[in-house]
Amino acid sequence: MSLIVQKFGGTSVGNVARIQQVAEKVARFRREGHGIVVVVSAMSGETNRLIALAHELQSQPLPREMDVLVSTGEQVTTALLSMALTELGVKAKSYTGTQVRILTDDAHTKARIRDIDDQRLHADLDAGYVVVVAGFQGVDDNGNITTLGRGGSDTTAVALAAALKADECQIYTDVDGVYTTDPRMVDGARRLERVTFEEMLEMASMGSKVLQIRAVEFAGKYNVPLRVLHSFEDGPGTLITLEDTQQMETPTIAGIAFNRDEAKLTMLGVPDTPGMASRILGPVGEANIEVDVIVQNVAADNSTDFTFTVGRADLSRAREILQAVADELNAREIRADSRIAKVSVVGVGMRSHAGVASRMFSALAEVGINIQMITTSEIKISVIIEEKYLELAVRSLHSTFGLDKEPTDESVA
Amino acid sequence: MSLIVQKFGGTSVGNVARIQQVAEKVARFRREGHGIVVVVSAMSGETNRLIALAHELQSQPLPREMDVLVSTGEQVTTALLSMALTELGVKAKSYTGTQVRILTDDAHTKARIRDIDDQRLHADLDAGYVVVVAGFQGVDDNGNITTLGRGGSDTTAVALAAALKADECQIYTDVDGVYTTDPRMVDGARRLERVTFEEMLEMASMGSKVLQIRAVEFAGKYNVPLRVLHSFEDGPGTLITLEDTQQMETPTIAGIAFNRDEAKLTMLGVPDTPGMASRILGPVGEANIEVDVIVQNVAADNSTDFTFTVGRADLSRAREILQAVADELNAREIRADSRIAKVSVVGVGMRSHAGVASRMFSALAEVGINIQMITTSEIKISVIIEEKYLELAVRSLHSTFGLDKEPTDESVA
Repeated sequence: MSLIVQKFGGTSVGNVARIQQVAEKVARFRREGHGIVVVVSAMSGETNRLIALAHELQSQPLPREMDVLVSTGEQVTTALLSMALTELGVKAKSYTGTQVRILTDDAHTKARIRDIDDQRLHADLDAGYVVVVAGFQGVDDNGNITTLGRGGSDTTAVALAAALKADECQIYTDVDGVYTTDPRMVDGARRLERVTFEEMLEMASMGSKVLQIRAVEFAGKYNVPLRVLHSFEDGPGTLITLEDTQQMETPTIAGIAFNRDEAKLTMLGVPDTPGMASRILGPVGEANIEVDVIVQNVAADNSTDFTFTVGRADLSRAREILQAVADELNAREIRADSRIAKVSVVGVGMRSHAGVASRMFSALAEVGINIQMITTSEIKISVIIEEKYLELAVRSLHSTFGLDKEPTDESVA
Repeated sequence: MSLIVQKFGGTSVGNVARIQQVAEKVARFRREGHGIVVVVSAMSGETNRLIALAHELQSQPLPREMDVLVSTGEQVTTALLSMALTELGVKAKSYTGTQVRILTDDAHTKARIRDIDDQRLHADLDAGYVVVVAGFQGVDDNGNITTLGRGGSDTTAVALAAALKADECQIYTDVDGVYTTDPRMVDGARRLERVTFEEMLEMASMGSKVLQIRAVEFAGKYNVPLRVLHSFEDGPGTLITLEDTQQMETPTIAGIAFNRDEAKLTMLGVPDTPGMASRILGPVGEANIEVDVIVQNVAADNSTDFTFTVGRADLSRAREILQAVADELNAREIRADSRIAKVSVVGVGMRSHAGVASRMFSALAEVGINIQMITTSEIKISVIIEEKYLELAVRSLHSTFGLDKEPTDESVA
């Protein structure tokens, strides 16, 4: 008898048949005696249909009205799922963000949750209802409808789980858990029984797009146990929790993440004077171009080379901006390269096991891969390599860190 | 400078191009300096699409969830029209029924409006906004979304006009006003400059389906001047107002209404004892079959004949019920006839001009039409005739009462 928040995305509720399947899954949990809150997205395609209507009317649709428009998508799903549950003999009731009420700031189309009124939900849960809540939406102080931005349904689920002090927040998706790396690239890729919030964040930001980063941050902040599961297959999924001290004793690399959506820009012959980095990156940031890896080596001969990566889509724009800066600074040359990939080893165990970096670098050297850039964080080491070596690098690292083998008993929950 | 409530139905906002046309019409009124509240329906087809989804899940969908589901249709239109208005340089803001708030009882799918909070609307109108309100929906005391039933958007518009003390409530439709009879049947049919609420009610219930009966009743009760206009053509439309004493002096027949959706049932040889009518009609009413005209003539030989009309779709069901009753009562025979039509002369002038009935009957006799049944109300005389004579009857009466001629100056506004 526990309280569970379950979130189903747009594909999981994409048509009536799927909504019925979701209802059957929810009903099974309910019949086991659990209290259930379900958070749903719009049926797949619906949000895009509504956005297209808006763009027929305005090139930049009014944010307030955009929220009024797209929030109907989730509302439709809540009603249909409540009907499907009732048809299975399970009492159910739908809620919009306004009705719950999920109070947000007034930043339309990208609002942030401030507070959740759990009173009505608790009353319905106590009365035996499955409560079905529209994801992605809330209401501001003045009663205006707001939305949390794309993928915000995950955030809704985690925020509800935190407010209701739920025992678990289950995110149902089209994968059966978090893997040690992409199974499409490495045959031996293995589902993790559990992973820490920090590892999940590093995995997610590296392109293992299972969960919204914001939702993971939120879950970590409020210590909500999060579980990733498959919508239509049975299985335990992957549990995402706070760091587990028991596991700290074993060498723990959670997985190998990678990303081939970046491009590299280098400014050669930059004068080695204070403030140079901000003079180079300032104009790039002002143009709303996100910079990921930044590397600057020690200077020689009063000049240095400055390298950073941006999303591939931003490369030409970033290059133009950089050329103007280079002219001002009398830098020697700009070089751009989009045929790169980033590979990262992620794991909380890294903190106490200094040997991870050297094992990683020697594994890459053994298969003849040259490392172009290196960057590290507390629980991650990333390298930039030539794109064509990406698969080789991922496979080699996956096997080097023993990720294709089942972990020993102590290291799993 | 007046305050106008304008209502546009589903066909008028059926696609983006039409929403833009509606926006242009609204913008013209706004630029003339009027305060404008617009009430919109769902884009045509949308409500049916949503209802079909519900019926895929439940044969009798949960009323509460049905309201959550279908109310999204109007919400979408409010957002899109607000965008279209803004694009024309007219400030606009959308409102759901919950946001206004349009307080109703909790009778889901057929709720009745109890109260409207006009505070937020007045604030926005004062600030120069066109306020766009979702028709057809409200909210109950507990924050649940309710709907007013099909066609409820007319009622929303009238209720808002009453609450805001608007100068006029304009209902935009696919006709340019209320006619003396159906123009498709009589070439000389003429648009009425004005008509009274009572006449409009009788015309509407007879099948001149321009406005929802409930909305007309509501407008009459709160004395809201109602105007029927064409959505995409310019013109003065027809004004629907309280009885105008000035017009009382002229012989005023507003129009000829008709209906061919009824069928006739007669029970022959019914014992002439008290309580017989309720023993016959009781079971019919219990089966939710609506009865329109009822005629019972004086008895002869201790038995009488009892005749009434029902909707054609209900004929076979009503006949079965009636057969059981006839067996119980030892009535002689049941006769059913669906090849009938009802023709009515409607007008407030009838009250003070007793000659209307005889003019009507003799006009029908002149063209050889036999009258099967007669029923009268304060401002209406209806006859049931054989269906094949319907056109002849309508044309003959239209000309008999001079409806194809422009009224004299005194009789128009």
